This record gives sequence, structure tokens and C-alpha cells, in this order.
Amino acid sequence: MIIAIDAMGGDHAPDSNVLGGLEAAREWQDTEIILVGDESRIRALLTEIPSNLKIVHTTEIIEAEDEPVKAVRRKKDASMVVAGRMVKEGNAQAMISAGNTGALMTTGLLVVGRIKGIERPALAPMIPTIDDGGTLALDLGANMDAKPEHLAQYALMGSIYRDKVHGISNPRVGLLNVGTEANKGNELTKEAYPLLEALPINFVGNVEARDVLNGVCDVLVCDGFAGNIMLKSLEGTASAMFSLLKQQFSKSLKTKIGAALLMPELRGLKSKLDYKEHGGAPLLGLNGLVLKSHGSSDAGAIKHAVRQARIAISNQLVENISKEVIQ
Amino acid sequence: MIIAIDAMGGDHAPDSNVLGGLEAAREWQDTEIILVGDESRIRALLTEIPSNLKIVHTTEIIEAEDEPVKAVRRKKDASMVVAGRMVKEGNAQAMISAGNTGALMTTGLLVVGRIKGIERPALAPMIPTIDDGGTLALDLGANMDAKPEHLAQYALMGSIYRDKVHGISNPRVGLLNVGTEANKGNELTKEAYPLLEALPINFVGNVEARDVLNGVCDVLVCDGFAGNIMLKSLEGTASAMFSLLKQQFSKSLKTKIGAALLMPELRGLKSKLDYKEHGGAPLLGLNGLVLKSHGSSDAGAIKHAVRQARIAISNQLVENISKEVIQ
Repeated sequence: MIIAIDAMGGDHAPDSNVLGGLEAAREWQDTEIILVGDESRIRALLTEIPSNLKIVHTTEIIEAEDEPVKAVRRKKDASMVVAGRMVKEGNAQAMISAGNTGALMTTGLLVVGRIKGIERPALAPMIPTIDDGGTLALDLGANMDAKPEHLAQYALMGSIYRDKVHGISNPRVGLLNVGTEANKGNELTKEAYPLLEALPINFVGNVEARDVLNGVCDVLVCDGFAGNIMLKSLEGTASAMFSLLKQQFSKSLKTKIGAALLMPELRGLKSKLDYKEHGGAPLLGLNGLVLKSHGSSDAGAIKHAVRQARIAISNQLVENISKEVIQ
Repeated sequence: MIIAIDAMGGDHAPDSNVLGGLEAAREWQDTEIILVGDESRIRALLTEIPSNLKIVHTTEIIEAEDEPVKAVRRKKDASMVVAGRMVKEGNAQAMISAGNTGALMTTGLLVVGRIKGIERPALAPMIPTIDDGGTLALDLGANMDAKPEHLAQYALMGSIYRDKVHGISNPRVGLLNVGTEANKGNELTKEAYPLLEALPINFVGNVEARDVLNGVCDVLVCDGFAGNIMLKSLEGTASAMFSLLKQQFSKSLKTKIGAALLMPELRGLKSKLDYKEHGGAPLLGLNGLVLKSHGSSDAGAIKHAVRQARIAISNQLVENISKEVIQ
């Protein structure tokens, strides 16, 4: 299989992308890794080039502050766009990018293209849960205004992803809502509920935001706006709590000693709740695999995204989604 | 001034309502407290009856599991409904209830009635912030599907409340959104933005959910669905973190000692982040003051709600909202 990596995307580009790609090429000999980006900068980071590591030279870069649609349309030789074109043309089965999220979604829509029958692709990161299982939440920001049919498609795609990529058979699919009863919610969730009930999935009903971290579902369906509010609230609360803990713990000698004794546990908790450490987020609904790695990804995160892509390709994720949608 | 308390609402009714009302009557001699509910049960809890404490006997109770609209329509002699009628008829300037939230909102709409020009009343609790200032968030669940004009009314009412009740002149009003730039959001927030900009308030623009706890605004405007998702995410994350901390801290003797040294600080943090401890939530937009106390309110919380009601009445909150809306 062939996996393209946008070498120029993310906060630590090209270093983390190149080194992550190199590690992946060493580990998985059956996989061809293609680093797409500025060849001289990429070569400068490589002490050796394994036979399954290739470079495709590009001259342009989409920056974090670029306006997505404009950038994808104008920068035809940007590393991200070229990687997308490779997926579109069948020269790669997957692409990975830690670059501008909006531009990657645009690349997905305009360059890779949608699966026939899917109206809106969805960004689907894993949200950490206290039982460590995590839940795949979608959509987390690809579309701000979803219709009930979109939520139903998210549910189906998320369910297939958890099955094919994470090996969870019959994953529990929940609908993010303000109460657990079937008649709760806004117009969108009320109309989506019966559509989700009618799907060939394990729909467990409405899920309240406060229960998400308890791991009550494997897939959490939401519109991009509500999903973003949930994720950012989670992030903000965890970060506020850590800064309050820090403040409280430096109050006296007694609390400083207590905090020192607990430091490893506190650090562990912080990384446990950090959704950025939970791998790449697929853009589901595209006619090819596109994985968004977090902007702050290091080499290990990029290698982990390659691992995810390999599993998704082996288990024919895109083909399975296509088949279910067309039925 | 006269303040009616629904003596039969909440998890600890009638005890906490009666004792909270008694404490309030003792503290504020200029305020008449009316306990509305089952007279014999109320009297049984009172060792003395100050001259400014009255009882209005009612025979029915709206239960937590009652369907709101049906209950308010049918139980005409329910303590909550009778208290609402007292506000409507001018026999009380405010009512306080720790009972069924949906039923209280229905009582507000059907019994007390809206201010002319306000389409949708809003539930407006305080959300804790790490700088202790807190932010008044509205709407937190009175209406699931808001229109841009509703958000503008929430902004105006919230701004007046913070000024008149909390003494914050020119309070900073933010719009809950997925990004800080003016063009971010879903259709609702994009259309609401210019309406908020045009209001005679201190509109500070879009606020991301992760910044809310940092105290970036005094009033946070949102639709009831998104607001509920935010609040429940906050609650769920804090609660998940405390259970994870507990789990980590009992791992070894070392961590147990560390945790013991930090216990008072950890407890303080828990109550700091508990929005339930931050007073009653007004239902803004009604033609009279209605305060929702949390279901788990103790006597202290009920007394605190009386304190809030007194300030709001003294500063003519309802009259000020009416005046601004009619202009």
C-alpha cells in the first residue's frame, strides 16, 4: 500500500513529518511512504532513505493562516494539494496532513472528492474517556449547519470506522443531546433520532455531554457546531482545572510537598485527557482516506497516523462506507 | 418588598425552603417572605414565625417527573403555580423555586407572562470562572431553537441583569462560538453577530468555549442547545477529572499521603467549579422576577436566592428590561 504524507504541514514541519515517515517506512516494509514537499529540505533531514520511502517534490506550502478555499484553489503545487491529488488519482491509498484543518477539508472536498451519496464529509477525532476506550466524535467542525440526514450519514460512517479500524463489532452509537429521552433536543436532533433508529447500527439513543467522558458510546454523533462547543468545553475545563490545581498546590510548604508526591499521576492525567494525543482524525465520506494529524504532532504522532491509515486501508474502510451508502 | 418561595419544590422540600425562608425573614426585616405550600408541613418545621413571614396554603405539588405543560395547566393549586400567580397579580415582586425546571419555565410563560416585546424568556445561571467573577450564561435551556433576534434579546437582558443585580457597569457580552473571528460559526451565530454589534451594550465579539472559564466575558450569549452542551461538558469534565484524580491518588502509600496533604485544596476546587453553588438562575424576559434555585438547594442556597431577588427588586430589574426592549 502507498501512503502520502504532507511533509510541509503542521507546527513542526517538515521535521516531525519526515522523521515520522522515516520511522513508519522502517517499521512497515510492505508500505510505501511518500513524503510530499520541498525535496531539499526533506533530504536534509534524512540520514538514510529506505527503499520504501519516496519523495515527491512540491514548491508551494499552505500556511496555517491561509484562507482554505482560496489557498487550495490557487496553490496547485502545494504539498497538501499534491498529496490529495495522489489519492484522487489512485497513486496513494491515503494521505496524512498536520496542516491547516480548513484547507485539508477543502482539499478533501475539491481534490479527493466525496463518496457518491455522501452529502457532507465529517471530521472525526477520538475524544478520550475515563475507561480509556475513547469515543469517535463526528462531525467536529467540517460542517457548521447539519441536516438530520447528515447526522444519519455520520452515524453510519462512524460505526463502520470503529468496526473496521478499531475492531469494535457492533459499536454503540449515541446522539449528542440535552437529555436522554427520545423526545429531547432541538429540531435537528429530534428529526435525526428516528433516522438513526432506522439505520443498521447499534443506536443507543441520546447521550448527554456530561456522560461522554464516561465512555457510554463508541461513536458520538453531533453537528459541527455543537461538537466544537463540546470539545472546546472539555479542553477548557481540563486546562482551567490544571491551572487551578497548580495555583492551589503552591499555596504552602504542605501543599507543595503533596503536589510533588503526586506529580507523575497528575502528568499522566493531563495526557490522558488530551484529545490531541489520541491519533489522527479521519475525514469520513471522502472517496479516499484523508487523515488529519494535530498541528502540534511530533514524529511519533505521524507514525501513529500511518499505523491508523494502514489498518483502514487493509480493512477497506472507504469501500465499505461506499457499499453501505449506496445500498 | 414581598418574595414568594415555592416551599414544596426541590430535593429537600419543604425543609430547605422553609428554613431558608425563615433565615431570610430574620435577616431582612423590610422583606416579607411568603412560604407557599402545605401549611401543616411548613408549620411543623417552624419553631417561631417572625411577623414578616407568612404562609399561603396550597394543596398540590408539581413533582420532578411531571410533564411541565400538563402539570402547570392541571395543578392549579400547586405551590409553584400559586407563587407564580402572586407575582402575576402583584401580590409578590418575586418568586423562588427549586422545583421542576421545565414546569417553572412553563409557569413563567403561562402564569407570570412575558415582557411585551420579548419573544422568548431565557434561563440564565452563573457559570464559574477561574478568576471568581463568573459569567452569566443565557439561554441555558429555556428554548432549544433560538433565532438571531432571540440571541440579541438575551444579550440585552443579560447585560442589564449584570449591571442592575451584580453592579458591573458596562458588562462585557460575548457570543458563544467556534472561533473568535466575526465570520465564524453556524447560520445562527453569523446572523446574530451584527445584531449584537448594533445593540447599546459592550459586545466583545465571539467567545470560544475553551475560554469561557478564563472569565473573558461577564455575559455569555448562546442558544439553549449549545449552552446546555457547554454546561454539561464542563460539569462532566470536572466530575471525570475528580474521579480520575481519586483513582490515581489511591495508587500507593506515597500518593495517598500526597492526596491527604492536598485534601482541603481539592475540596475547595470542587466547589469552585460547581455551578450549582453559584446562586439562583433568573428566568429573564418575564413580567416579574422568577428565580430558579438548583434542585439540591439547602437552606443557605434558598436564603442566597432571596438576597439576589432583593437586589433585583431594589434595582428595578424587570422595569429596566421592559424599558430597554420597548425603546
